Amino acid sequence: MDILLTGRWADDDERDTWLAALCEAVRPVLPGARWWLDRGEAQPAWPDRIEIAVVANPLPGRLQGLPRLRLIQSLWAGVDRLLADESLPASVPIARMVDPAMNAAMAETALWAVLTLQRGFHHYAAQQRAGLWRQLPQRRADELTVTVLGCGQMGAAAARRLAAMGYRVRAWRATAGAAAGLAGIEVHAGAEALAPLLADSDIVVNLLPLTPATRGLIDARFLAALPPGAALVNLARGAHVEEADLLAALDSGRLGHAVLDVFATEPLPASHPFWSHPRVTLLPHVAALTDPRSAATVVAANLGALVEGREIAHRVDRRRGY
Amino acid sequence: MDILLTGRWADDDERDTWLAALCEAVRPVLPGARWWLDRGEAQPAWPDRIEIAVVANPLPGRLQGLPRLRLIQSLWAGVDRLLADESLPASVPIARMVDPAMNAAMAETALWAVLTLQRGFHHYAAQQRAGLWRQLPQRRADELTVTVLGCGQMGAAAARRLAAMGYRVRAWRATAGAAAGLAGIEVHAGAEALAPLLADSDIVVNLLPLTPATRGLIDARFLAALPPGAALVNLARGAHVEEADLLAALDSGRLGHAVLDVFATEPLPASHPFWSHPRVTLLPHVAALTDPRSAATVVAANLGALVEGREIAHRVDRRRGY
Repeated sequence: MDILLTGRWADDDERDTWLAALCEAVRPVLPGARWWLDRGEAQPAWPDRIEIAVVANPLPGRLQGLPRLRLIQSLWAGVDRLLADESLPASVPIARMVDPAMNAAMAETALWAVLTLQRGFHHYAAQQRAGLWRQLPQRRADELTVTVLGCGQMGAAAARRLAAMGYRVRAWRATAGAAAGLAGIEVHAGAEALAPLLADSDIVVNLLPLTPATRGLIDARFLAALPPGAALVNLARGAHVEEADLLAALDSGRLGHAVLDVFATEPLPASHPFWSHPRVTLLPHVAALTDPRSAATVVAANLGALVEGREIAHRVDRRRGY
Repeated sequence: MDILLTGRWADDDERDTWLAALCEAVRPVLPGARWWLDRGEAQPAWPDRIEIAVVANPLPGRLQGLPRLRLIQSLWAGVDRLLADESLPASVPIARMVDPAMNAAMAETALWAVLTLQRGFHHYAAQQRAGLWRQLPQRRADELTVTVLGCGQMGAAAARRLAAMGYRVRAWRATAGAAAGLAGIEVHAGAEALAPLLADSDIVVNLLPLTPATRGLIDARFLAALPPGAALVNLARGAHVEEADLLAALDSGRLGHAVLDVFATEPLPASHPFWSHPRVTLLPHVAALTDPRSAATVVAANLGALVEGREIAHRVDRRRGY
């Protein structure tokens, strides 16, 4: 079986690390697999017999002209940029990356951000730089209400970790549907349910998929629905946020703090006011890096399902957008 | 019954907050309690009939001349400064503060520090200040070995939280003895067991009591036993650390980072090199503030035990020093 690996990488080392991990993990499942690597050729000479594309945000158009393609397997959890490619073959199933190691990493980042905000460790960092020794009031975890936006694998992993630490946790999803892995946690759904949840949230953690229903959700109206001094943790996508509205809420002090991992433009331009804003903790899109070792195992399991005629796991619903 | 409240406070507001919380919590247990407040008088005119002293690091000598004193109840968990008062009545039982809310706060700080070190959030903070967008390698929790020094209520609470997050956790105590609340966690004891534990520790979290056996434990020899690049989190007492040795290990880069909440002299003097050291995250002794509301409830329960002739909880063993 012939497999194409195509995507955008930080550098050739990153690409080669992925290729090595994938070859090793897939070999036991598909001993005769032949890998084709997209090197950005203008006229790629890939054979017609390619049946699988393993992709990491490929350049638009790279999946055209593959008549026998049976599966597009993403290495990244978010497929919003992939689905935006209008030349994507319409009838080929797409699978997202759902990796337990990545869910754990996302839950760690969410918990770290909430602990930072609860206990004021960002204020203590500023005090250290200013040479200031001052104890701030200490809030107990059960005094804080945390709303997690998104009930997918990552939202559920984060909500469970936060609930286990004693925070009052509620989860929200844009559309009604089953929410797995959220036993004991209140789940709300739909646009009407959102404003009342925001009104008594101390901290909002965004882990939504980026879809037409969630793009631009965090705008002036959303931010005005939060109580004064609340905090936002955005670990999902920059396009969930109207950045000008967020900046205004931070400038006025209405929003107490924002922990931001994702941005409308990445890398964040050097001139962007978020870099030096005293109310912003900025991360360079590292809330949950995909781990080549565990992700390659997930890919191998899905390729095994394909060749054995079993159901593909984590198949994308193109209508919903994730 | 007459009760003396004596201690050193940040200001009169802090003292009055404590007095109000204590009066309210103790009233149902001892409806006729009369509270005497130490205002630092040179010749205090407290009555002979005082039976209980509730203390918060009182000035040395303040507990002399109380012939009917039956209990010294500390509001703080650490009693090393209290026991250093040579005029302390020798035969009066002393109780430490053991407050579930404070144990939870300590576990939060330990977890926050370990998450910061695991995921490099301190590096990302430095990158934000430098305007640098760069993703660092991501380590999984189960790739890190964390050694917790101290198996008391706080050490056990921290070790449990860390183990639940997936870190490889071992606990160590200075002397052999029962370690409650550490089911499923390896416990080691005694000086000989320490060096082998340090040798494969990525992170050491200090939550020991300060006793003659633990004073100065974290010295050049201790730090040299750690692997290069390891990190230290000190949330216990400044006197556990030989600060000159720690500074040398940080300066050389042998020790990767230190999260320090406690210091030989507090507040940390403005001229101290820890303030601006790039490998130091400095907290102003806030890892676990005693919460007046929950601590007052703990005091009330112990006073109830005293008047009903039951055993005092969390009684200090003066020989061991905690």
